[in-house]
Amino acid sequence: MLAQELALGILSQNRRSLARAITLVESSLPKHRQAATELIRILKSQASPRETLRIGVSGVPGVGKSTFLETVGLAMANANHKVCVLAVDPSSQISGGSILGDKTRMQKLSLHPNGFVRPSPARDTLGGTALRSREVISLCEAFGFDRIFVETVGVGQSETTVYSMVDVFLVLLLPNAGDDLQGIKKGIMELADFIFVNKSDLDPHACNRMAKYCESVYELIHTPREGWKPRVMTGSSLSSEGVDELLRGLMQFEQFLLQNSYKETVRRTQKQDAFLQELKIVAWDQFLKTKNNVINKASSSLIEDKISVADALWQVIEGE
Amino acid sequence: MLAQELALGILSQNRRSLARAITLVESSLPKHRQAATELIRILKSQASPRETLRIGVSGVPGVGKSTFLETVGLAMANANHKVCVLAVDPSSQISGGSILGDKTRMQKLSLHPNGFVRPSPARDTLGGTALRSREVISLCEAFGFDRIFVETVGVGQSETTVYSMVDVFLVLLLPNAGDDLQGIKKGIMELADFIFVNKSDLDPHACNRMAKYCESVYELIHTPREGWKPRVMTGSSLSSEGVDELLRGLMQFEQFLLQNSYKETVRRTQKQDAFLQELKIVAWDQFLKTKNNVINKASSSLIEDKISVADALWQVIEGE
Repeated sequence: MLAQELALGILSQNRRSLARAITLVESSLPKHRQAATELIRILKSQASPRETLRIGVSGVPGVGKSTFLETVGLAMANANHKVCVLAVDPSSQISGGSILGDKTRMQKLSLHPNGFVRPSPARDTLGGTALRSREVISLCEAFGFDRIFVETVGVGQSETTVYSMVDVFLVLLLPNAGDDLQGIKKGIMELADFIFVNKSDLDPHACNRMAKYCESVYELIHTPREGWKPRVMTGSSLSSEGVDELLRGLMQFEQFLLQNSYKETVRRTQKQDAFLQELKIVAWDQFLKTKNNVINKASSSLIEDKISVADALWQVIEGE
Repeated sequence: MLAQELALGILSQNRRSLARAITLVESSLPKHRQAATELIRILKSQASPRETLRIGVSGVPGVGKSTFLETVGLAMANANHKVCVLAVDPSSQISGGSILGDKTRMQKLSLHPNGFVRPSPARDTLGGTALRSREVISLCEAFGFDRIFVETVGVGQSETTVYSMVDVFLVLLLPNAGDDLQGIKKGIMELADFIFVNKSDLDPHACNRMAKYCESVYELIHTPREGWKPRVMTGSSLSSEGVDELLRGLMQFEQFLLQNSYKETVRRTQKQDAFLQELKIVAWDQFLKTKNNVINKASSSLIEDKISVADALWQVIEGE
């Protein structure tokens, strides 16, 4: 059995098995889906749970995510953490791989005995991405990784998706405010537990201005975690400036998570949310399949302004 | 037939008929629902379409929405527009009516021959609110109103709901920044086509500071309408300061909407979205009803961490 073989491989910390298992989980073929579910089931019953931290990292292309992850990841790996980096990478939908092509990302972290870097292709549906990514995280945790980075370029709703599967959310910003590429989008500041204004090696003044600006925004908006005020930091992943402070911050955040079993509560809620979200997709798919014709008909009449929304609904509910 | 009687009343501009029709549309009794759908159907076939502008207005309690709506509404009514004010008012869920009780809101506008003020109770479900409110808007338009204000206190997701049914969205802000009551929440600045920092009669300097702050936020965030940069204004609905400028701004926005039939496109999309959103609620309700037991069972196992999300999904899809 494929599932059993891979489970054994993962539990004995075989990297090739982990890589194959991730590919299996990411496949959408029904038989792979079945094997993947079986694999997760075995691992769930076998792996001994340990304290892990799931860290979401978001930032626009060019902000220096790879360098940041390599620098921070290596620091953790050197401190005897087992660090893996997963990517929710919309670019691979088009190119079939990273835009950077043959350039290996995070080479030092990849080669570190405590490190593992895996870009994972994003799926069409958001729900799919969330479920698969959750499963990939659990594979890595079963393998023994205790620092799981989940990276996203923050296209569309991917930040909220990543937020829904991590314990802590970190946003990288460029110092030059006013740039459209900056992409400080809907709600992203509200999601962040940490903001790291990167590239202080290039322009420390602009970094400080940006940080002050973020602080002032936090005076105004509500943030979701009671008891944790988002930390705004400046630094450079290239020169490692600010990285120690960030690591200290993350440790404090871990302490915060331990209080009142906050992490367990969050993870339980996340899992329940993921379940309901997937179920809604299933329910909607089934509904669309059964009602396809009548929905199309009602929808056309609606667009042509022949009927009201209530009439359109009526037609679908009554129709076969 | 009730529907025909009310339709005739509305088309002959009988205010009592309009009020009764709104009550009918807001009722959730199945027979009322049926009559309401019939009423909308008749009006749709009878009413001659005219250019109307649907204006969403949001702001926290205390920002002065009623005074603002009365001042702006009266100015429009005096300029021969027919103005109505509808409210999506979560407060009535608790009190059964306005918090203000016997104090009549917007008394002058209510009594103006071109004015109509109707607070409408909010429904349990967001979808319900959106559909009903859309229907109330179409009643008012069939009656002959061409300036439809839809007001919300912006609790929960109500801004997005209101945004999804109006042509232009206006946010009222208080000048004192940093106040938690201010409630500059998730995405609200992105929704706004106009921001009106109110109460410049009390503190013009604070108003200007707040306006500058908003401008600086707009340098950073993306706004959804290509070709329209959100306008930030200061003023006082009590002293009427800034109101003329706002009216000019709204006229310019109307011109903007006319370009490339932008308004028709937006309204068509809104209607289609409302239809799909309602359908999703229907699909989910039906799914929950048929699968209730198996969902509860899977959900419990998931919470107790006995099974994975994929397993839980599997149990529901396979289960009876």
